[in-house]
Parts: sequence; structure tokens; C-alpha cells
Amino acid sequence: MRRRCFCVQSASLALAGVVGTPLGAQPPGPDPLPSWRDGGAKQNLLDFVAAVTRVGGSDYVLPAERVAVFDNDGTLWSEMPIYFQFQFALDRVRALAPAHPEWRTRQPFKAALEGDLKTLAATGEPGIVELVGATHAGLSADEFAVTVADWLATARHPRFKRPYTDLVFQPMLEVLAYLRANGFKTFVASGGGIEFMRVWTEKVYGIPPEQVVGSSVVTRFALRAGEAEIRREAKVFFIDDKADKPLGIHRHIGRRPIAAFGNSDGDLQMLQYTTIYPGKRFGLIVHHTDAEREYAYDRTSPVGRLDVALDEAARRGWTVVDMQRDWKVVYSWQRP
Amino acid sequence: MRRRCFCVQSASLALAGVVGTPLGAQPPGPDPLPSWRDGGAKQNLLDFVAAVTRVGGSDYVLPAERVAVFDNDGTLWSEMPIYFQFQFALDRVRALAPAHPEWRTRQPFKAALEGDLKTLAATGEPGIVELVGATHAGLSADEFAVTVADWLATARHPRFKRPYTDLVFQPMLEVLAYLRANGFKTFVASGGGIEFMRVWTEKVYGIPPEQVVGSSVVTRFALRAGEAEIRREAKVFFIDDKADKPLGIHRHIGRRPIAAFGNSDGDLQMLQYTTIYPGKRFGLIVHHTDAEREYAYDRTSPVGRLDVALDEAARRGWTVVDMQRDWKVVYSWQRP
Repeated sequence: MRRRCFCVQSASLALAGVVGTPLGAQPPGPDPLPSWRDGGAKQNLLDFVAAVTRVGGSDYVLPAERVAVFDNDGTLWSEMPIYFQFQFALDRVRALAPAHPEWRTRQPFKAALEGDLKTLAATGEPGIVELVGATHAGLSADEFAVTVADWLATARHPRFKRPYTDLVFQPMLEVLAYLRANGFKTFVASGGGIEFMRVWTEKVYGIPPEQVVGSSVVTRFALRAGEAEIRREAKVFFIDDKADKPLGIHRHIGRRPIAAFGNSDGDLQMLQYTTIYPGKRFGLIVHHTDAEREYAYDRTSPVGRLDVALDEAARRGWTVVDMQRDWKVVYSWQRP
Repeated sequence: MRRRCFCVQSASLALAGVVGTPLGAQPPGPDPLPSWRDGGAKQNLLDFVAAVTRVGGSDYVLPAERVAVFDNDGTLWSEMPIYFQFQFALDRVRALAPAHPEWRTRQPFKAALEGDLKTLAATGEPGIVELVGATHAGLSADEFAVTVADWLATARHPRFKRPYTDLVFQPMLEVLAYLRANGFKTFVASGGGIEFMRVWTEKVYGIPPEQVVGSSVVTRFALRAGEAEIRREAKVFFIDDKADKPLGIHRHIGRRPIAAFGNSDGDLQMLQYTTIYPGKRFGLIVHHTDAEREYAYDRTSPVGRLDVALDEAARRGWTVVDMQRDWKVVYSWQRP
């Protein structure tokens, strides 16, 4: 068998204004998951990794096949009180409003301008898609990336008063680093916009753009003003969620993951696709049970609803993380 | 700046029947491109790689940004007398014909069954799409991969009487290995089917499934007979060709390549997207000029037409490889 090694240097992203967040790679120590309390969830993960990396063991998996997929919103970072990308869209509505007087009387734009989250929530996915379409389009891919970076540099979470990229879960950063240290290739597989996430996933998660799977808009290639560019249109190309999430993963990665990490019913089929298959597999659900340090929500939440997948977890033997009980810290800047 | 290293072992693909083809990785020697004759094409490539890897030089590019994309048909392997995947579809038509008596009188199936390539060629892309749709669908992704592997194990090229995977260009395998040895990440970006290619690209090119961009069909997630699977439908999802090729690259990789390798007008926009942008870039076109060792065709060929892109190459300073003059060998098993 051939063994190939690569070394890469992390690109310094043009994100000067973003407050630094731990990349996730930790020096190997006696405990690879120091922010996890000892218990079933942590032990399940350690046991799984030990099993698939034990050369000669019955559950051994070749490194090239060690693919792990992570949902983003609610799994790697928070998603309350609204999806962070949705907040980005609202802020874009405000920024673009002077050129769109009709938005003052038309939903969902009116509610967005008035900060009326209740009305916005009632518009559901169609409302979100319309807002995202109107505010994320008309730009080249390059221009859009700059817009996202600028927003991340200045926007602050309403409750924690910190940049959104500070609201990543320290225990999950440790999981990412732990899996990579054990030969896994880690991918984001999220309903969020692929171009929204790629701007910061390498810096924040250590996951490069080519390992991000997400929702996308229709794009168009154009030669304009002497440059070849890709322009974004106000039309959805693919929503990487629910029953379509396995399709996005398959199309993008082309290998079935052996481990999947999610937190909501949107991750149900990704977890099924990953775990209902021969060979050693691992499924994990982050259950938000910690209103004090983060948020507590599940079966009835409009954002990140966890209902069917919670029942399925029991049936399929997926690991359910009780955030309050299993995590010593949620965010790296919180004291344990 | 952080430096990260990974080691992976090549997966042993379930392709027992496929005759081994060089993986591409060569031990470093005095000449990284031994199958290339000295001359402009070879020198341009050497100069480009030297420029982008010279630390402190004005053209230096961080390893993470060293993305190179390769068209497949006609660039990495042959495409004559017909696209190899098209031959696969024809062979599937014959295999499935007993269950489809209507095909005996209906085009393009009738022509396929009669081996009437002229009539088939006249059906153009719609005919190809219909044939591929009818013969590549109704299978799970796993079943389809097995079908492709079985075909590769037994099918032989009509002129060279060898497995199709023997018809890869030795000089291009050297380019792949040379770029990877210089920190590049190499991707296939082809109009061919993504699931057709992924079965063998790792073994033949050293390019893993997650680094293959290609055309895809509509798929569907299903729980069936106790397994979670992805099923292929007889409908095109995305054709990764011409002006859509940059879109496939952008969506899949999320970084603009700094080097692109193609051979036909289908690669025009990929080459434009790669090269018409600030910074050091490299575009290369393989010009099929060698009827003796391979094939000679360009401006009027129905397969792999090279016309507009050949003119554009002169205007943009892309390197044009004269296969007959620039390559000492075309296939590894040919004597120089």
C-alpha cells in the first residue's frame, strides 16, 4: 500500500477584522477532548475512533475512507436567536434599503427593516429564501465574499456581544482536531450558503473551502471589464438540507461518510445515510439543553427543531450530547 | 503561519479486474517530466511552477491556493473514436436491450444497437444525454459504481485493444505528479459523469473522489430494504461543460484555480476563468496532432472540437501542446 504525505500552510484569509478564533488543532495531549466531561457521549466517540483506526481490527477503516461530515448551524456554532446567515441577510436588507423604497411596504422586507422577527419567522423557508435571494444576489463571487468578511468583522451577536465567529463550540473544535489527528478528512455539510461559509471555515474550523458542502444559488460565468468572473443570481440552485443533504454530500465528496454530526431534523437523513450501512459508523446529535451558557430548545423550536431525529437517535443508537451535562465549556472564552 | 501535514494511504479500490495503470507519483529525479521533449511547452510549465513556488518571489502562491484543474476526455485520456463513457453507454444499451424491445426501432437506441456511430453522432448532445439517461439510471450509486468497474475490467478500446484506463497520457500523469510534488491540489473538471469517473480516478490519476468535478444526474435519497441509499434518476442535474464548467469548479472547489489543462472548446471558459485574473496563472491546451500514436483532430472534429479555444490560446498566451512534437510517448506502454 502506498503512503502519501502532504504539507500545506494555512492561507491567511483576507479577514483582518475578524477576531481570531481557535483553529481547532490542539497539541496532542493525554486527553484529546478536554472540554468534554467524562461520560457516555465522550466515551462513544473515543471508542469509535479507536475502533476504526486499530490496524488489523475488524472495524479498521482505511484513512482515505475516514470521512466525517458536520452540520454547521447548531452543531459547530450557535443558531439562536436566528440563523446567523439570516441575520446577515437582515443587515443586508438595511444596507440596501435606500435603493429599494418598495421594501418599506412589502413582506418579508418590511418585517426585516422593522426587526419584526415574529412576522419573519412566520414567513418560514419561502420568506428566508426570498430575503436571501434579494440580498445575496447581483454580486460577483469575489464581491460577495468581501461583503461577508466585512459583516463578520463588524456584526455582533445580540446576546453575547461578540463576533459571530466567537460563537463556535469549543468541544466541537476539539472533535474536529481529534478526528483530523486520526486521519479523518472533515467536511462541513450545512443548509447554510456554501459561499457564505467558505469565507471563514478555514480560519475558524480548519476546514478549507473545497471541504465545505452547502446550499447554493444559480451562478453565471461572465467576462466583464477585462476579468473573468462568476456572478450570483437571485435564484436558488440547491438547498443542502433534509433529504437533499445526503445528495449534496454524495455529489461533493463521492464517498459515504463514516461519521456524521448534526443537531436538528434537518440532519436526519445525513445521519441515516451515514449510519445505516455496513461497517462501523458513528452518528452524533448535539442537544441544546443549556439555556444559561447557550440556549435550550428542541421539539417545538422554529429554529433548529429537533424532534424526529431525537426519536430516531434512540432507535439507531446515535450518540446524543446533552450540552449542559456533557460539555465543560460551550465557548472557548467562557470559564468552565 | 501554521504548517499542517497529513499522510493518507491510497485506498485499494474494488477494481480487481482493471489492468494497473501508473498512479502518477514518480520519485523525484533530475527531470520531473521525462516523457516531455525539451521545448516551449515543457519550459512554460517548469517556469510557471518555479515562479509560484519561489518563496519571497513576486509570483509566490501559498500552497493552499495552488489549485490545478484538469479536463479529462482528450486531456488526461483519449476520447476517440467516441467518448469512452459514451461507449460505456452503448455497451449498456446492448446489455439492457432484451428488456427494452422498443429500442430496436427507436433512435438513438436503434443506432446504438446497430453500432451506427454516424447516426449517433448526428443526434448530438441531446442524443447522448438520452442514451446516458436511459442506461445510467434506475440504479443506486453503489450499483452504478460496480457496473462501471465491471465494464472497465472487460471493455477494450477498438483500436488499441486495451482497457480504457490504459489510454491515459503518460506525459499528463507526470504533470499531475509534478504539480502535487510542488504542493498543488489536483482536480478533475470534466464534462464526463462525476460518478463514472470517481470509480477509477484515484487508482489511475491519484485523484480522490472528492477532487473530481463532473456532470451529474438527479438523485434521490431512500431507505430501502434496511439500507440508506442514493438512487440515480434518468434526468440531468448539471452538465459540467463550456460556460458552466467554471460554475462547477467554483461550487465544488471554492477557490479559483491558478492552472487549468484542457483540449477542446468545452474547456474555453475554464481556461478563461483560471487565467484572466490578477496573479500568475497558467493555461494549457493539448492539441491532438498525432494520428500515428494517438489521433489528429481539431477545428472540425465532432468529438473534442478545438477551434475557438485554439484562437483564444494565442491571444491569451496559453501553452499549446503539439502532441506529436512535444511528447516522447503518449501512452506509458508505447516505446519512445
